[in-house]
Amino acid sequence: MKKFPVLEIFGPTIQGEGMVIGQKTMFVRTAGCDYSCSWCDSAFTWDGSAKDDIRQLTAEQIWNELSELGGDLFSHVTISGGNPALLVHLSELVDLLHEKEIKVAIETQGSRLQPWFSKIDDLTISPKPPSSGMSTDFDKLKEIIDYLDIENRLGHASLKVVVFDEADLEFAKKVHITYPELPFYIQVGNDLVQETSDDKLIGHLLSRYEWLIERSAKEKELNSARILPQLHTLVWGNKRGV
Amino acid sequence: MKKFPVLEIFGPTIQGEGMVIGQKTMFVRTAGCDYSCSWCDSAFTWDGSAKDDIRQLTAEQIWNELSELGGDLFSHVTISGGNPALLVHLSELVDLLHEKEIKVAIETQGSRLQPWFSKIDDLTISPKPPSSGMSTDFDKLKEIIDYLDIENRLGHASLKVVVFDEADLEFAKKVHITYPELPFYIQVGNDLVQETSDDKLIGHLLSRYEWLIERSAKEKELNSARILPQLHTLVWGNKRGV
Ligand code: SF4
Ligand code: SF4
Repeated sequence: MKKFPVLEIFGPTIQGEGMVIGQKTMFVRTAGCDYSCSWCDSAFTWDGSAKDDIRQLTAEQIWNELSELGGDLFSHVTISGGNPALLVHLSELVDLLHEKEIKVAIETQGSRLQPWFSKIDDLTISPKPPSSGMSTDFDKLKEIIDYLDIENRLGHASLKVVVFDEADLEFAKKVHITYPELPFYIQVGNDLVQETSDDKLIGHLLSRYEWLIERSAKEKELNSARILPQLHTLVWGNKRGV
Repeated sequence: MKKFPVLEIFGPTIQGEGMVIGQKTMFVRTAGCDYSCSWCDSAFTWDGSAKDDIRQLTAEQIWNELSELGGDLFSHVTISGGNPALLVHLSELVDLLHEKEIKVAIETQGSRLQPWFSKIDDLTISPKPPSSGMSTDFDKLKEIIDYLDIENRLGHASLKVVVFDEADLEFAKKVHITYPELPFYIQVGNDLVQETSDDKLIGHLLSRYEWLIERSAKEKELNSARILPQLHTLVWGNKRGV
């Protein structure tokens, strides 16, 4: 069996963002990312700062740990990163979870296509806007969405763009207009990932969210969008593993 | 054309709760409710306090006002109450909105069935838990869900239960177990509908939300549930018309 670089396994908790916001879920966080977004809230997955915490686990070992932690108190697992789409053999884990009647969600920025995308129950593709400092490969994005279309999986996918500023909002519009057939989520960016005062963080993020709602309200191209905050950050601040 | 008792028309803003949480939408709030929930956050729709603000409007007049307010900046309208399901002829408004290529969401407690339920794009049925002081007519609920099933509309519906305490959580489980085929949302109750300090309100509601997540995490029967706060209350407090 293949091994996967795992940094965190935790839950049951809720999915705090995106297409299944609020869903009760367990989390498996894999290490490694091909991006280095300026505002990455999981930089420890790729910047070396947590490299001693990375464990190489098989699908079965991951399942055992999920079971130990969650018992029979979960039916949904979110695989997050880093970028889990770097892991060619991740279908081993996805298949095992499906055998156990567990639904699987994943988020990726859309820089890699893996055939196992067609097995994911809730697939979030989250191209990174200009403020990240990254540049989106729109050909690759098209390849991924064409693949999902051919595999008849568009109903299990969504697009999500994190927005910090006006340029990001323009980028979000472009992504949405290009793929109107996919549910589209706009998420308010957390520009205080180092803030340790929860009160300060919450007040700031709610006012940024209000800004994002007001701006989106003025954009005809975003009429069918859904505009969301990150709920876990409102509840637990910048803490990890909740 | 029939007339409908309208209390508020506002937007574009976001839907703050439930199955299309975050969705950009306009709101039409109708007057009148057959319930009187102890914690109702829209008591002005039925307790007489706003009765001088009720306007009797035709579907066309409502559409004109929506257009004036929202221009081309919306493609989704939420009809809320009170209980809009009291309005036998509301299909006139639903049909008109559909003609204009507008999607329609509605929320009702499930005390009345209207044939036009089968036309609603996002139908939330929200039976009221014990803390409301109301008692749910489970036969009527079954009648509604059977009707949606026959009309092949379960994909457009969801169940939502507001939870304040342990007894409410038991009620939520019962509703979900009875209709596992419907997406199920648990919403944290706002027990401070009179609070005018937003800071106090936000801190309190977030800690109640954390409680609800922790409690739901421990309930096997809620594994597939989605647990959500009311986003509009976090952003705008107890203000009306946002
Ligand atoms: S793609 Fe995601 S995990 Fe990778 S650097 Fe960007 S925000 Fe961080
Ligand atoms: S059913 Fe809704 S509108 Fe009617 S009293 Fe209860 S909470 Fe208020």
